[in-house]
This record gives sequence, structure tokens and C-alpha cells, in this order.
Amino acid sequence: MVKKYSQLTKTIWMTLIILGLAGMGHGQSLQEVMKARGLSEKDLLAAAKTYNPTGKKDEYIVFSSGGQSGQVIVYGVPSMRILKYIAVFTPEPWQGYGYGESESMEVLEQGKINGREINWGDTHHPALSEMEGDYDGEYVFINDKANPRVALIDLKTFETKQIVVNPIFKSEHGSSVATPNTEYIMEAAQYPAPFTNEYVPLEKYNEIYRGGVTYWKFDRNAILTLNRRAVKRLKKAGVPTKGLKDLEDQEFQGEDALLSAVGEKVGSEAAMKNKAALLKYAEKEGRLIPGKSFTVEMPPYMQDITDAGKGPSFGWSFTNSINTERYIGGFGKGNTKFQDRLANEAGMSEKDTDYMHVVNWKEAEKLFKAGKYNKINGHAVISMADMVAANALFLIPEPKSPHGNDVTPDGKYIVVAGKLDTHASVFSFEKIMQLVKAKDFAAKDPYGIPILDMKKALHTQVQLGLGPLHTQFDSVKGVAYTSLYVDSMVVRWNYEEGKVLSKIPINYNIGHLVSAEGDTIQPDGKYLIALNKLAIDRFNQVGPLHPQNHQLIDISSSQMQLLYDMPLPLGEPHYAQMIKADKLNPIVRFDKKSFKHYVRSGQERIERNGNKVTIYSTAIRSHYSPEIIEVKKGDEITWHITNTERAQDQVHGFGIDNYNVHGSLEPGETATFHFIADQEGVFPYYCTEFCSALHLEMTGYLLVKP
Amino acid sequence: MVKKYSQLTKTIWMTLIILGLAGMGHGQSLQEVMKARGLSEKDLLAAAKTYNPTGKKDEYIVFSSGGQSGQVIVYGVPSMRILKYIAVFTPEPWQGYGYGESESMEVLEQGKINGREINWGDTHHPALSEMEGDYDGEYVFINDKANPRVALIDLKTFETKQIVVNPIFKSEHGSSVATPNTEYIMEAAQYPAPFTNEYVPLEKYNEIYRGGVTYWKFDRNAILTLNRRAVKRLKKAGVPTKGLKDLEDQEFQGEDALLSAVGEKVGSEAAMKNKAALLKYAEKEGRLIPGKSFTVEMPPYMQDITDAGKGPSFGWSFTNSINTERYIGGFGKGNTKFQDRLANEAGMSEKDTDYMHVVNWKEAEKLFKAGKYNKINGHAVISMADMVAANALFLIPEPKSPHGNDVTPDGKYIVVAGKLDTHASVFSFEKIMQLVKAKDFAAKDPYGIPILDMKKALHTQVQLGLGPLHTQFDSVKGVAYTSLYVDSMVVRWNYEEGKVLSKIPINYNIGHLVSAEGDTIQPDGKYLIALNKLAIDRFNQVGPLHPQNHQLIDISSSQMQLLYDMPLPLGEPHYAQMIKADKLNPIVRFDKKSFKHYVRSGQERIERNGNKVTIYSTAIRSHYSPEIIEVKKGDEITWHITNTERAQDQVHGFGIDNYNVHGSLEPGETATFHFIADQEGVFPYYCTEFCSALHLEMTGYLLVKP
Repeated sequence: MVKKYSQLTKTIWMTLIILGLAGMGHGQSLQEVMKARGLSEKDLLAAAKTYNPTGKKDEYIVFSSGGQSGQVIVYGVPSMRILKYIAVFTPEPWQGYGYGESESMEVLEQGKINGREINWGDTHHPALSEMEGDYDGEYVFINDKANPRVALIDLKTFETKQIVVNPIFKSEHGSSVATPNTEYIMEAAQYPAPFTNEYVPLEKYNEIYRGGVTYWKFDRNAILTLNRRAVKRLKKAGVPTKGLKDLEDQEFQGEDALLSAVGEKVGSEAAMKNKAALLKYAEKEGRLIPGKSFTVEMPPYMQDITDAGKGPSFGWSFTNSINTERYIGGFGKGNTKFQDRLANEAGMSEKDTDYMHVVNWKEAEKLFKAGKYNKINGHAVISMADMVAANALFLIPEPKSPHGNDVTPDGKYIVVAGKLDTHASVFSFEKIMQLVKAKDFAAKDPYGIPILDMKKALHTQVQLGLGPLHTQFDSVKGVAYTSLYVDSMVVRWNYEEGKVLSKIPINYNIGHLVSAEGDTIQPDGKYLIALNKLAIDRFNQVGPLHPQNHQLIDISSSQMQLLYDMPLPLGEPHYAQMIKADKLNPIVRFDKKSFKHYVRSGQERIERNGNKVTIYSTAIRSHYSPEIIEVKKGDEITWHITNTERAQDQVHGFGIDNYNVHGSLEPGETATFHFIADQEGVFPYYCTEFCSALHLEMTGYLLVKP
Repeated sequence: MVKKYSQLTKTIWMTLIILGLAGMGHGQSLQEVMKARGLSEKDLLAAAKTYNPTGKKDEYIVFSSGGQSGQVIVYGVPSMRILKYIAVFTPEPWQGYGYGESESMEVLEQGKINGREINWGDTHHPALSEMEGDYDGEYVFINDKANPRVALIDLKTFETKQIVVNPIFKSEHGSSVATPNTEYIMEAAQYPAPFTNEYVPLEKYNEIYRGGVTYWKFDRNAILTLNRRAVKRLKKAGVPTKGLKDLEDQEFQGEDALLSAVGEKVGSEAAMKNKAALLKYAEKEGRLIPGKSFTVEMPPYMQDITDAGKGPSFGWSFTNSINTERYIGGFGKGNTKFQDRLANEAGMSEKDTDYMHVVNWKEAEKLFKAGKYNKINGHAVISMADMVAANALFLIPEPKSPHGNDVTPDGKYIVVAGKLDTHASVFSFEKIMQLVKAKDFAAKDPYGIPILDMKKALHTQVQLGLGPLHTQFDSVKGVAYTSLYVDSMVVRWNYEEGKVLSKIPINYNIGHLVSAEGDTIQPDGKYLIALNKLAIDRFNQVGPLHPQNHQLIDISSSQMQLLYDMPLPLGEPHYAQMIKADKLNPIVRFDKKSFKHYVRSGQERIERNGNKVTIYSTAIRSHYSPEIIEVKKGDEITWHITNTERAQDQVHGFGIDNYNVHGSLEPGETATFHFIADQEGVFPYYCTEFCSALHLEMTGYLLVKP
């Protein structure tokens, strides 16, 4: 059949050529191009499905972890073009992140651990914020496996706004995961360690080393601002606004702070009476709230991937584990103890099953609110015993060394893929609840946690292939896609009916995979991306460190079709989420009034107070004002620069020779730089963006006198 | 005509559908996809010209500066997929660059200026190494405008191997530029400053502030190694090799060091006799040699883009300038001096012409070798007076505030584009030489440099459009492409005949542009990329900081055709070079024996010497050996880890909790990490690459006792 079609096609192309279409006035015809480049008709179809002519926007946006680069990668689907690397844990000068610009320095400062700057992260699992189980396009969270931390990126600006350090973990993996209304961001530990920061010998592993899951409280209204627009709207809504102008652009940490400040202006009674309107019209910024966050203590199994229940399973969370053997034998000549035992990879995968941890986080929240926790390193830890007593923590055996742990869109099932098992295990939440309610426990683990019977909790098991890992979902009810690491394939199957539908080979070694809106209660189907770990021969060689390969697959029909191979030029992504592009609503310029130290043209000045020098500058095509700044060696410089441009995309930069200072000034933004002028000499500063034909002339001198 | 074709096409597609080709078993037909995605036939042709099905390699590789990201970007043409961000001036954890791995720490250490770590760079102009005016695919050089430095990237590994700090400049721009055999890498200053590091008031600008061009000597045989293969080959060539085994894998700095060491083994006579064979078979690494480099002093004009002569103009170099007005008036309220004068952008562009600096670098080299220089900050500076006396430095007026300065492939002309002028000025090297030889000088500048008459030196001037900047060349003789910044266009024109051929609009605001092999003596034509500064509405919005837009243009026929819009996700590239992919020959794994501290499996060990602990580890799927390491707080750790894999792409990573240490271990590589165990506690370390189904189990504990 294929041959026949090709014959026909050939005839038709011949006709096209004769008809004169082929040339199109641009040299080669389509057929000539296809022949010269070795493209089949299937390739041409894939090209048409992924090619974006100039100006065409993408339908979906992917937020991918950047692995050890410590960043988050943003790219478009179906064109598979990378749009941005967002700096998160790693300083990045283009964005001015961590190079002297105060706002970013403060964010990175939050990421210090025990006073030490940690300037990289091993990002794994991004989590888009959700409302009612659907991505809302407002925030994305990302974790650091190596130095347990979670960061928050605001999707209005695509900038990192917060980093929280896990106060008790020394490693994590199953993070970040959002509950269906982003009540919490979950962070599961990985390699057990003492919760405190002391040395504890490995002999005390079972007694002192611990795992757990931290539930970071998220508050969408953590920071409230009454800007001009808000005050105007309040006035229109009939709220007394006299004096509120004074509060403009101040940031209030939480509702109470705002209401109290407004109360002082308009009277507390009026403030409380208009609370709803005040909160409605104030600008809001979400933050994770460490003081309202808690950790559920878990045994020193290595907790792993975590997912949140939804629909019927709302209020629960599920966390895989490996090494329930609690193997710490170590291996290798030179070990200071336990020499010549099995390697971890063998010792940690001896048992046929590990445990899924089943947590009722709603109950845990109650325990937290009731004060049933211990404070460790200033952080609330709910003990296993208290969780067990509250019927809020259970274990279910799952096939050995599992990897994926994915709740189905309807919230009825949890799909676990066994890695060293060829099956996917589909657990039924309903059956789990029946066992829980009936207290039908098969056993207890050494830490007193009830263990449910695996078979009784299972809906079905389906043989998928070698090395099944992670599962994503289709718009078609019951249809799922699972990555097969060892087979280098994606399998399409039905978890309700328990049958395999089709497979597609990928190149090579797929880890996670992501489908369009795949973690929501209503996946879109359409596109699936295989997040492959190796590229080997797929791309031109660029030295011994290769790019990864993200492969776009068309899942709009029952037959999966490979569309595109996309190299990853920086970092090893682990997981990604794909959101409908029209759910995002980023700003294209800043409201200059939202910056405390903004300067209008003509208000530029230099203020000196002892050895403290404050500079108020403006930047506009193509000059800074002022252009000459003379200070004394040792002066403490605070330099506010306002980009007074209104035009979209009209960014300026700011770099000074030899001071390791660089910032990006987007339209309307005021950036503040802080440094000590500790070197004598002549230091040119200049705009590091090609902002106009006279961009080279956008320069000035910082002169530091001895 | 177009309409007619469309009509015909429609009929033909209808036929295709009827014939059953359309479905192809994969859902939508090609026509349906085109309709659904709004693709024209022209779009489909562009898609076919740029789409790479899985496994298809690119024909060209682009090395692009990464702007303020401080990196170099590598991407493929025509697919426009980014293959790698090479870390250069900015630490990058995925590559393990600057996160504790000794080799990279040493490279970054070289980049310190006056003892200060500078962890970013403003990279502008990459230069591929050349032989006989053609890219040889061995090295790429890249500059840092902000903190004047030049870095060398080895294209065997795509890793940065060297950073040199300009000892006297405080700013630069026209760099990096290679002479035709990579004799030198040129680096032109930008914002004038004192050559010393002292404060000098702006009032002394004319007397003390200076510009210049540094000629960095490049030596391809800077580091020589006799590895096993080399010794074997020497033996075969009949060279006495007794005792040479002892020298294996030692690095010799230069030929003399190698010959002397070999002489000690086989006798110095035998060594000298076999010098040619020894140098032929030794492994070689190229380096910039600061001790053999020099700077030509220039007036405090702002030197800019620089190009090297070739063919008839070999031995000469050409450097633009702006602000020959020597305007330093400054501007802006708050200036500490000269308040309320014109802004730099106005004051620096008052005159109708600036100067092209014409340098005979071969003569400068002679002066340097003859010791005719002053040492400033330990660096050789040849004075303007000595250059003038040697007939080696001239000025030619060029239209005001020029930007581009490009020598034609045949070396006969220098094309200068005027930025504030609508013309490109084509200077004739032959005419320049006639004026020089006849000492036909129009005037002298205030520093005594002869000025040639512009008109006498011109071949022609061609009106190209608004804001012409940079020029690249075609395979067709005389044909050039110039970027029009203000017009947002590329113009195809003939610099020999002095006529415009065609134009194509771009989106938006093009800076540089690059054609295939465009800076060589034999450009390939075929592809041109517009390196646009703004993207505005071309891509999905990702906040106020947008990607740049590199647009691929088909120049294989006389009618330029836009093929592809490529967003740049990180950094603002300035310039790029495009090399034929088959000229590159990177390694895919390391020779383990090339690492001094490599460890075979079974040789792992921990050695303690006082508080110095040296660990010899191996990493292979999926375990480290050893897996448990116990040290005391305050111990100084040196940790050698050998990736003993042979499989291509089988990379491992190495990260330790809370020690800010991360490395990438490519197959065959031994990486060395150095840190003080200054924190007590339990610190998991693990492989940060998804190296196998059991990658999570590739872990160990670093235990630090109090």
C-alpha cells in the first residue's frame, strides 16, 4: 500500500512540476527539497505539524525542570522552540539574577543553607499552581533535590520570587507537587538523614535517620498592595478611600497587616466592613508560608515521587519509596566502614516490594493546627505515631523500586510503575478507603505504620514492557501513557480496562513524559513529550557531554506519531508540565509606580550621607542620566536605575567594569544595585543591551578616587 | 500568479485526498494540517527546508556569543535547534563549571581581575580558529566586553580551557577576531581609560586616557603531551623511545620543555635530530600566550569592531571607532561634574566622520620582537609614536559613528557601514597602500597619526538603507549582505559594482548577521542568519524580558527567503560564526589515561595525611565506589572520581548536599573536587544524571564528624 501511494504521489508531484507550482520563485521546489534533504511524506506531515512561520504562536507552553543547571526551561509546543531559561537556584547575569541587583540578591539570600550560599540546584519536578485541579497559569514551583529547597516563580514576570529551605531534610526528590487548589506544595525526602544537623553514625540509621513529606503552605494573598488602580476601584465601589493614597505601593504581609493599615486611615470599622472589597482589589502576590508549613515524619525508607489525590481522593497524598530494605551497607574499597558489601543498587533492591506511603494531609493539617507536632530546627514535624493514631498514615506494598506514582485525572486510581517489574500497578482509591475504614491491615511496619494488603488495594496490574516509569493521561477516558526506560518506548494503554493499546519507540531511554495538561483533572490529549535521557546519535556531536532529547509525539489519533526531536542545550531536565498557552497572562512591561525608588526623568540625583552614596538614575534610549559619577574608595553605593521606556521589549542593561555587577532593566522597572566601591580607578559602565543604533554611546564613568 | 497557483494546488490536493494519500493512517492529512495551522505553501516549503526528522544531522553549526549570559551558544542550521550552551565566564553547574571541579576552577581563577572573581561576561564576537583564511574547526575564542578578557574553547571537548585578562584595558568591544592563520587573536578597546589602574580625573582624558588593540599571540603547540599513542607512532617512525614511557601523559609547556625532557631520556642529540617527529606525534593543545602578546596604543577614540586583512591585505588589521570627538561631557542631573551638557549619545556623534584605524600588525610584531615597547602592568605596549615612526599606524575618516568593519573574502576591500549614514563605504586596500607608500597624507590627528584622505581611499559608496551595520559575504563574487538596523531589513548588494540587488524585511531590529563560512576567504552562501535584537510579538510572551530572534534566511537563490524564526532563551547574542559541520571533530568520550588521577575499578581508596584526605573513587552504572566516606570536620578533601564507562553519552554527575559542589563526569573522565569539610553532619552525595533504571540508588554518604 505504501509503495502504491508513493507511486501515485510521484505522479502527482510530476504534475505539480509541470504545472509550474514547484518553483514558486524561490529556487528549489518542494519535491526537490524533500529529495535533497531525504524527507519522506511522513516527515513532511510532521514538519507541517510543528513548523511555526514567523509570528505564529505556540498552542502550549512547557515548563521543564533544568536539572543540575538549577533553572527552569520554558518552551513552546508544537514548535519545540525554547523561549526562556528562568534563573532559579543558579545566578544568571542576562536576567541580572544574583549579580548585584537587590531583589534577586534577596531571593538567593533566602536560599542559603546554614549560612552557606548554595549557587546551584538539581531541579526535578515543576508544579504549576492549580485551582480545582486545573492549572491556573499563575505560578510555577520547582524543587532542588541536592540541597532540599523549593522555589516559586511568578508567571506574571517569569521571575523567581521566593526560595524556601527545607529545615530538616538533607535530600529530597518527590517535589514540587501541588494539591488541587495549591493549598500545599509537597516536598518528599529522598536519602534519609537525621532531621537535626548533627553527625549521627550510620549504625543509628534505623533509629535516628528519617524520611518524610513536607507540606509547604501556599497563600495566594501573602503580599497585598494597594496601588493606584486598586484605590481607584475601591473608590468606585463606594469604599472610603481618604488617606489610602499614603499606603500606595506599600507591601503588606497578609490580610491583617493591610486591614490594620487601612483601619488607621479610614477607621477600623470601615476597614472591616469593606474587607471583601479591599482584598478583592488589592494587588496580590502568592508566597509559601514557612510558619504555616509542616512535615509528616516517615521511616528511613527513601521516599520518592509524590502525587496529590483529587476528586474522590482529594485530601490525600501518595508517595513512593525505594530501599525499604533500609540498606546502608555501602560498597567499594576505601569505605571507612562496612567494606565489601553489596553496592547500594543491589542492596537497595533486594525485596520484591517497597511501600507506597498514603497520607491524609487534611488530617495532618488538623494535627498541625491543634499543635500536635515537635519543633525541629524551628519547623513543625508531626510524628509517625501521631499520624498513625489519627488514621492518617498507611503503607501499601508496591512492586520493587518503583518510580512513577500518578493519580488518574478522575482521582479514582493511583498508577505505580515498578521499574524492575514489567507491570504497572493500578491501585484503587475506593478499595484503599474500604481497607482503611475496616482497619483491615495486613501487618505493621517496624515503625508501627499499618500496611494494607497489596492485592486487596489493587484494581489491576498490566504488563507494559521493560522498565516502566512514569504515567501521563489522555483526554480519552481511561487512556494513559507510560514511559518504558529499558525498552526505550512509550506505551499507550487503558488503566480501567487493563489492556495495552499501542507502543512507539523513542530515542533513547525515556525518563518522565508529559502530556498536554496531563496532571489536571481534564487532560487535553493531543501532544505528548518523551523526556529522553540520552541523545547518542540524534544530533551533531558537541563533545562528550551531549544534549538530552525531548521528542514530541502526536497523540491526537489512536496511532502515536513521532513529530520532532528537540535537543536540550543546557541541563538535564527531569520532569515538565504542559499548559495551554492562553492560560498564561504575563506582563510585557512593569508599572513603574510599583517600584519604591523609581525616578522620573529630571529627578535624577546623587545623595551622599557620610560614606553612603545613593544614586537615582534613569535609562532611556540611549543614555543613562547621570553619566559621570565620582565617589571615594570605600563608599557604600546604592544605585537605583529606572528604565523609563514604555515600549514593549525595550530593555536596557547595566554593567560596570570589574565590579561583578550586572542587571537587566525591563521597561518600567527600577533596579537597585548595592556594592562597595572598594577599588580605585576608572570604571566604565554601559548599557549591555543593543537598545538603539546609538547603543554603544549609552555609557558613563564611575570614577573611584583613592 | 500566486492566486492561480493556489487554485491549481487546491485541485491537486483534492485529487490527493480522493486518491487516499491524505490520511496516511495518522489522523489529519497534510492539507488539513496546513489549513488548521494556517500554513501557506511557502510556509510548507520553509518547513521542508528546515525540518530535521529524528536522527538527521545539521549541515552547519553556529557558534554564537551568549551576550550578558557570559556563555557561547551552539546551534544547528538549518534546523535552528540549540545544541549546547558552553559555560565560559559564568559558572554553570550542569557542566560542572565552577562548582568545585578543579579543572574548571583553575580556568575561572585565570579570569580574576585584580584579585576579584568576576563571574559573568558580556560576550560579543566569537572567532573560530583559522588556517589560510579558512575555519579549521579546532578552537573558538570569545571576548568579554565588560571586564576585558578573552577565552579559548577547545572544540574537541566544547569546553573552556583558558581565560586571559587584558592587563591594561577597562573595556573592549572589537574582539575576538582571528588573523588568517590564527597567529593572533585581536582585542580592541572600547571606552578609553588609563592603562594603569589608578584614578585619573576626566579632565586628563585627552592626555592620559587611551584606547588600543591587543594582539594576543596564539600557539597551537602550547601544551605538548606524549601519550601512549604518540610513543607507539614514534617507535614506528624509528625514533628512539627508550624511557619515554616515563613521560607519558605529562604536560610540557612548549616545544623546548618537551625536547629537553625527551633529551634526558634518549640523549639531547637524538631528541633534536627527531624534533620534527616528536612535535608531529605529540598531542597538542593550543593556548594564548600572554608573554608573547602586545598592545598597540591608540588615541582615546572609542575603538570598535575590528577585522583582519587577508590575501593582499594579510598582515594588516582595521579597527573602527566612535567618539573621535573625545566627548566626555556627561549629562544628567546629579553628575558630579560637567552637569547639563549634551548626553553622550549626542556629544559623541557630532562630527560627520570618525576614524578607521589601519594597523600593520606584522610591523607591530617586529617592534615587539625588537623590544620597542613599554611595560604597563607587566604587559608590552607599543606607543603610537613608535607605530607611526614604523609606518604601521594610519587613520582614515569613515562616516560618523560606524559599526561594521568587514574585510571582503578576497581581502581587497574593507566595507564600513555608517549607522547614522545610509551608505556603506567600500575602502580599497590597494588605494590605501598607494597613499601609504606615497606618504600622501591629508593631515595628522592630535596624536601625530597620519590621516589618509577618505575619498582617495574609497572604492565606492552605496546607499543601502537606514541604519546599516554589519556585512557578511556570499559565495557569489562581489555579493554581500548588510544588516539595516533602523529599516529592520537585510540588503543584498554588490560591493564591487556598487549596486543594491534586493532586500528582505526581518522582525525586528537586526544587529549583526552571519552567513555560512561568512568570515572565510570562501563563503558558502546558502544560509544567512539575521541576529535580531527584538522579538516583540514573534513568540509567546514570557514576561517583560523577551527572547531575541534569530531568523534563518535562504540565500541559495538571488531571491532571499525567510525560513525560520528562532527564539534565544538565554542571553542576548551579538555575533556568531557559522562553520560547516563536517569540519568539527569533537571527541565523544575521554581517554581515561589522559587524566593523572584516574582510578581503575578495584583501585579505589581513601588516603589520609594529617587533615588532608584524598579519595580515589569510581563511578559506573549505577554505583560509586566507595559509598561511605567518614571524615572529620575541618578536613581538606581532594576527591578524584573516574567515570569508568566506555559507552558514549553515559555521563554521571556528582553532587553533595550543602557543599555547593557539583560535577559532570563524562565517559572516561576523572574529575577532581576540592573542598574543606567545614560542616558537621550527614551529607548524601548522589549521581545527578538519570544513568540507569537504578540511578536513584547511585548514592552514598559523606559523614562529617565533629
